[in-house]
Amino acid sequence: MNLKCLVVVLAATLVSGISQAQTTQSAVLEDFKPSSLNQPGQEYPQVNSQGYARFKIKAPKADSVKVSLGLGGRGGTKLKKGDDGFFTGTTEGPMDEGFHYYHLTVDGGVFNDPGTLNFYGSTRWESGIEIPAHDQDFYALKDVPHGNVQQILFQSASTGIARRAFVYTPPGYDKDKSKKYPVLYLQHGWGEDETAWSNQGHANLIMDNMIAEGKIKPFIIVMTYGMTNDVKIGAGGLRNFKVEGFQTVLTDELVPYVDAHFRTIADRSHRAMAGLSMGGMETHAITLAKPDEFAYYALLSGGTYSPAELQGKTKPDLVFMSCGSRERPDGVKKAAVDLKAAGYNAVSFVSENTAHEFLTWRRSLHELAPMLFQK
Amino acid sequence: MNLKCLVVVLAATLVSGISQAQTTQSAVLEDFKPSSLNQPGQEYPQVNSQGYARFKIKAPKADSVKVSLGLGGRGGTKLKKGDDGFFTGTTEGPMDEGFHYYHLTVDGGVFNDPGTLNFYGSTRWESGIEIPAHDQDFYALKDVPHGNVQQILFQSASTGIARRAFVYTPPGYDKDKSKKYPVLYLQHGWGEDETAWSNQGHANLIMDNMIAEGKIKPFIIVMTYGMTNDVKIGAGGLRNFKVEGFQTVLTDELVPYVDAHFRTIADRSHRAMAGLSMGGMETHAITLAKPDEFAYYALLSGGTYSPAELQGKTKPDLVFMSCGSRERPDGVKKAAVDLKAAGYNAVSFVSENTAHEFLTWRRSLHELAPMLFQK
Repeated sequence: MNLKCLVVVLAATLVSGISQAQTTQSAVLEDFKPSSLNQPGQEYPQVNSQGYARFKIKAPKADSVKVSLGLGGRGGTKLKKGDDGFFTGTTEGPMDEGFHYYHLTVDGGVFNDPGTLNFYGSTRWESGIEIPAHDQDFYALKDVPHGNVQQILFQSASTGIARRAFVYTPPGYDKDKSKKYPVLYLQHGWGEDETAWSNQGHANLIMDNMIAEGKIKPFIIVMTYGMTNDVKIGAGGLRNFKVEGFQTVLTDELVPYVDAHFRTIADRSHRAMAGLSMGGMETHAITLAKPDEFAYYALLSGGTYSPAELQGKTKPDLVFMSCGSRERPDGVKKAAVDLKAAGYNAVSFVSENTAHEFLTWRRSLHELAPMLFQK
Repeated sequence: MNLKCLVVVLAATLVSGISQAQTTQSAVLEDFKPSSLNQPGQEYPQVNSQGYARFKIKAPKADSVKVSLGLGGRGGTKLKKGDDGFFTGTTEGPMDEGFHYYHLTVDGGVFNDPGTLNFYGSTRWESGIEIPAHDQDFYALKDVPHGNVQQILFQSASTGIARRAFVYTPPGYDKDKSKKYPVLYLQHGWGEDETAWSNQGHANLIMDNMIAEGKIKPFIIVMTYGMTNDVKIGAGGLRNFKVEGFQTVLTDELVPYVDAHFRTIADRSHRAMAGLSMGGMETHAITLAKPDEFAYYALLSGGTYSPAELQGKTKPDLVFMSCGSRERPDGVKKAAVDLKAAGYNAVSFVSENTAHEFLTWRRSLHELAPMLFQK
């Protein structure tokens, strides 16, 4: 899959993927509870057991309040004003399980829902809501040993600034001071930033839980900002995105910094790169440009590799490609089949009943982690 | 100063302290620039060299948009609607230097300014604006070695949940694995949380810069959530605040966790506690209840100690009390004089031309840090 093609796919899924609510008109159960992503003490938005979301916004003198969630392509959910000055409304159908970004339109202006926490997506901090998933246990906060997520600031000569990354170190990292760990470099998508994989993705909790269950050997995860060329990258911007700037930051600056400051096993076979959406595009380009840097490649809703692209380069130990069932799973499945036929260790994973959203990527990390650093 | 008295002072300063703009009607210089706390790529809000703030909000069908900043007690700044659907306006006078929380009122509903980053204050994520301070260099992000700020999750038996804290480890912490460090436990104010001292306070940058200049010996800072009894603590709630719940979390759970997982010097003379506003109230109560846990006490806009309170207890190595000049500096100064007369090592600090806001506390930390762990 070439980059131009990927850009078109991403653009399509970014738009249509905002909401995938079904049009079922079944009775709405009145068992609504506050979303787990609400700000402390906030009662709204709420979610019911079927996945419907209900909103309540105070704006006594406003004429119109809309929510960008509901039925994609039909303008979201229009709230109705009550005599008490609150606008309320419920999505027309149940939402997909998992995390959704959204915002309000209040009398024509775009604002966040004051009830929810904010998450960086679409190059802005947006409201977020969580529809409880049937498999949410794997990313739940449990009473198990917890790793830490730390903010590091590393000076970047190529961009002339101190850049931020978040580093997950597994539980026990502070105990055995002689133990060294493999590293996964894990990238966010377009419009997101280095906070996404911890905040929206729960990458740290996914790791903590799998380590506690003995399903994986502990490794470090490094998450940094992947849009080095311009934060104002817009609709047309993604098509013009050049990966070279970020490649320099990642491979010439961040990897050496991490190897110098953390107890890593600093070689190719203990270094993986993965990314979601645009982060997959970056992973694709950088692993192909630097095949001796990374041994494990993973694209989460971020395109595919072909045998022709990998031919003649140092062979990866694993190629992992995933997406949601509401994206284009056939392309991901076929790519894995083709790579396997050509002698590569390739795996595809399809997240059931999810689109281009974070539950797809939480599940993808959960599938990927046990396959990493197995050689 | 007893607690009831402190509560009244805090309530007064929380209300009046939101804005301390002067009423000078000098000409407004047209050198406005985007606030440093804007979201990536956002042009508004803007600040000029005199400290005026200008806002621009899109809400084409709204009748009224107000900003909670401007002239305290007079309802903030009312924006004026233009033909382009944007509301714009400038504060009536210059603002105090430093960080200010604010929000919008759009047709009667409270929303954040979509142009800015959000900061947790008043028990909600609010908009923030930064008026450049003449002494901002001490908390600037510079090309110096940076410490890390890491999120830890520690299981709390007394509250039955995994609690979050942020831990600043100084530059070099990962290098010399035998070196151990003193620890400052640093608390936020009412309505804020464990993110405040890093996000609004730049505690990590203040430390990085002072360490780079050789002004302080490196130490660890631990910041956790101090409102354990109820997140819904409201206007009347602060008066009813009980410190015991938090004291148990801090001294019985967090301190042992930090001593077990970080390379600390785990004794009284290498442990300090400081807090701003309500965090000062907590510091006051906990240091008096546990005089053998902490050797250094600091109250930042958070009350005072009297010789009578300290009498008969293990003597602190330092008592530091500070506030902004727009608060009640005489009380803080007098308390230090009284304590010194009674034989204590007591220091007062007054931040010039600031109120009950974060520049007062950034400056206080900058003054306090070199005085810690000197014995």
